[in-house]
Amino acid sequence: MADKKMVQEITSMDVDFAQWYTDVVIKAELIDYTSVKGCMVIKPAGYAIWELIQKQLDARFKETGVENVYLPMFIPESLLEKEKDHVEGFAPEVAWVTHGGLQPLQERLCVRPTSETLFCDFYKNDIHSYRDLPRVYNQWCSVVRWEKETRPFLRSREFLWQEGHTAHATAEEAEARTIQMLNVYADFCEQVLAIPVVKGQKTDKEKFAGAVATYTIEALMHDGKALQSGTSHNFGNGFAKAFDIQFADKDNTLKHVYQTSWGMTTRLIGAIIMVHGDNEGLVLPPRVAPTQVCIVPVMQKKEGVLDKAYELRDLLKKNFRVKVDDSDKTPGYKFAEAEMRGYPLRVEIGPKDIEAGKCVICRRDTREKIEVSLDALEAKVSELLTTIQKEMLERARAHREEHTYTAKNMDEFVQLFTEKSGFVKAMWCGERECEDKIKETLSVTSRCMPFEQEEIAQTCVCCGKPAKKMVYWGRAY
Amino acid sequence: MADKKMVQEITSMDVDFAQWYTDVVIKAELIDYTSVKGCMVIKPAGYAIWELIQKQLDARFKETGVENVYLPMFIPESLLEKEKDHVEGFAPEVAWVTHGGLQPLQERLCVRPTSETLFCDFYKNDIHSYRDLPRVYNQWCSVVRWEKETRPFLRSREFLWQEGHTAHATAEEAEARTIQMLNVYADFCEQVLAIPVVKGQKTDKEKFAGAVATYTIEALMHDGKALQSGTSHNFGNGFAKAFDIQFADKDNTLKHVYQTSWGMTTRLIGAIIMVHGDNEGLVLPPRVAPTQVCIVPVMQKKEGVLDKAYELRDLLKKNFRVKVDDSDKTPGYKFAEAEMRGYPLRVEIGPKDIEAGKCVICRRDTREKIEVSLDALEAKVSELLTTIQKEMLERARAHREEHTYTAKNMDEFVQLFTEKSGFVKAMWCGERECEDKIKETLSVTSRCMPFEQEEIAQTCVCCGKPAKKMVYWGRAY
Repeated sequence: MADKKMVQEITSMDVDFAQWYTDVVIKAELIDYTSVKGCMVIKPAGYAIWELIQKQLDARFKETGVENVYLPMFIPESLLEKEKDHVEGFAPEVAWVTHGGLQPLQERLCVRPTSETLFCDFYKNDIHSYRDLPRVYNQWCSVVRWEKETRPFLRSREFLWQEGHTAHATAEEAEARTIQMLNVYADFCEQVLAIPVVKGQKTDKEKFAGAVATYTIEALMHDGKALQSGTSHNFGNGFAKAFDIQFADKDNTLKHVYQTSWGMTTRLIGAIIMVHGDNEGLVLPPRVAPTQVCIVPVMQKKEGVLDKAYELRDLLKKNFRVKVDDSDKTPGYKFAEAEMRGYPLRVEIGPKDIEAGKCVICRRDTREKIEVSLDALEAKVSELLTTIQKEMLERARAHREEHTYTAKNMDEFVQLFTEKSGFVKAMWCGERECEDKIKETLSVTSRCMPFEQEEIAQTCVCCGKPAKKMVYWGRAY
Repeated sequence: MADKKMVQEITSMDVDFAQWYTDVVIKAELIDYTSVKGCMVIKPAGYAIWELIQKQLDARFKETGVENVYLPMFIPESLLEKEKDHVEGFAPEVAWVTHGGLQPLQERLCVRPTSETLFCDFYKNDIHSYRDLPRVYNQWCSVVRWEKETRPFLRSREFLWQEGHTAHATAEEAEARTIQMLNVYADFCEQVLAIPVVKGQKTDKEKFAGAVATYTIEALMHDGKALQSGTSHNFGNGFAKAFDIQFADKDNTLKHVYQTSWGMTTRLIGAIIMVHGDNEGLVLPPRVAPTQVCIVPVMQKKEGVLDKAYELRDLLKKNFRVKVDDSDKTPGYKFAEAEMRGYPLRVEIGPKDIEAGKCVICRRDTREKIEVSLDALEAKVSELLTTIQKEMLERARAHREEHTYTAKNMDEFVQLFTEKSGFVKAMWCGERECEDKIKETLSVTSRCMPFEQEEIAQTCVCCGKPAKKMVYWGRAY
């Protein structure tokens, strides 16, 4: 049973979910560790997923009028310090450049942890009149945060992301863009990644350093923990005042601009793994699968088998991302490997199949095997990929529903977080004190105040005072 | 004549080419300066060119089997020091990170100036057997070199590029890949950027730190100066020995791999400006023009004019990158702006044109005006873009031929570099001493030993000893 070796080495997700996750990222060859602590190599199988995410997200951005730019990776210390809340949030976790070549620098530069200050410094000179507004810019780059505990994709010292930064003439327009981008993110997660999300607003405790309001999409992983999957911030005109970004409005008076920012990161790859993966490895939604169909020839040394495999590949490659595994491994090993790597469909074809004019398609998500005539292969592949994409979202949504609970009071709340794992919906008075207490006693944080509010009770789950908001609570990555 | 203001502010290229260049990058809104010395903002009009370069170059890479990855931006000092020549070449110009958050680091990290050492550190663990070879990886990222003198696109402290890094079982295969990628670069420059290049090998003095051989493509700018536009390096197994990258070959013995690297950067945008630009501003080859057709409505307040402009846009946008300038500026201002930004075609349409069922197309490269019936517009635009792409390459090639000279002896050589500017082809004995002397006396460097050799004379242009190679010499950016 050497064929199964690759699979047997994976820890079961029910035994140790964290170890299962690590096994999958390594065995599916998504990443490798490096000599630089907390930084990883994103290998071809991992980077190709990111390229598909970039391509589809970028197209959605551009449909809403976003233009891409590139700003420097360095921020002078004095620039980072201009907005008080912002520097307090980020200064403790940035990397500092102190020398250029053999010379010490006159002023330290930090490697960008996020680029609000750089965009403000740029907009200050770039925006003069209402004619220059709105500015709806985005950049794809890497950022650095000097984290103590790191995990591949979920939390690393350097990660890849996009960061949108916009400037508007009015507060209303800035708020509308903030919500618009949150909706782009939510739709992208559901339609492309097959990950359902809860949309809502962060509490003041959890919002971004310097923001007036932070909106978030929260997803539930297979182990019942939450993952913040994208955020969109409304800054009001706070940064504009700190950086003096003013424009001459139509009425000829000088006004400060209103700003937003919004970002998604390579952590989405972690979400794909933890929402869809199983004990055989990675399961990729077709829309972000670098290989959608893997053709595995059986008895490939028999005359005509490899030729037929290549013929099917050439047929399918017009509309799908397809490859033939023609390596000298055994079919059993190739099957296990195709499962580990999460290819949505595997096509098995051997001499008997060819004789009968058929082949076997195996779905990665359900592991169902389907016999199909070669004439009908192309249509069947198309149909199955659409079905898989749809059903993966449905299964993830059903899993989230099953693991979303409601608590009317603290006893129920504690019991749920002791016995279950998932989201707990509960009422909140709006006071920081209750959030702090819940975090201290249960290691549970407020994930968001969802846009779709429900009245579960009339009093705060923690203090019993009148409730203001229904909150999703959870343990988070 | 306020309409012409935008253009009048540009310095003529004949008066001051360097100032003309700076005027174009600013007026065409390609970049902006920042608070970080030597680092620039690449604005939407500049970044969109880079996106078109990336897309087309990346597709060409992938056709040759290249896979994209992402490696960390930081290199531990001890890793940078492993290959002696390499560290000597780069250590004087790297940025050093010494602190993470509030703590000093145990070991300094440099921000990558190039990633050979990181790829070696990765390949050391990633490559075990001949089955793992070749590795043909590439990454798109930014790199940092602490330059003293900086100029937008041509030399900046941070710039964007791609860097390919490959590992092979044999020296022959590595050499073949090095040449293959140089050919990809040369073809890309000619076919996409409309820039003709000379392919050749760098002398030992000019080769990359740590390489056995460096190949280059050299382009001639409008002012007669050379621009190194892409390089491809063969490392032999020198890095593999320094980093101990070995594989078990088919004969069951351990062998060191052979490696290559190759890169192109945002400096290509500088090349586009300096090869094709004129005194009206930027001139973009259609294949990298973010806007290929700009429709300018004339008397746009008249009923039906804007509607017709949008109708033409909708017709053209199926196959071309097109926009309507419907701002409230005057037509004259819009014409000048469209020329400054280098749009290959401008379509002018006013009430009389609409009545006559025609419009006027203006070529940016020749400034020729062509009347065309609206029915024939789509076909004419297609034809003109193809023609422009082709003729821009032809003109650039003719310019290079006119500015490529030959010198048989030092008198001719000195006279040419005193009176003319361009490439000078001359023979060389192969000794470093002659290269050094030529550089000291004339500020001229060997650009390359071209693959297409000619025997201009039998003796070295400098020392008179027997010649070994014909060399392209020039003053370079």
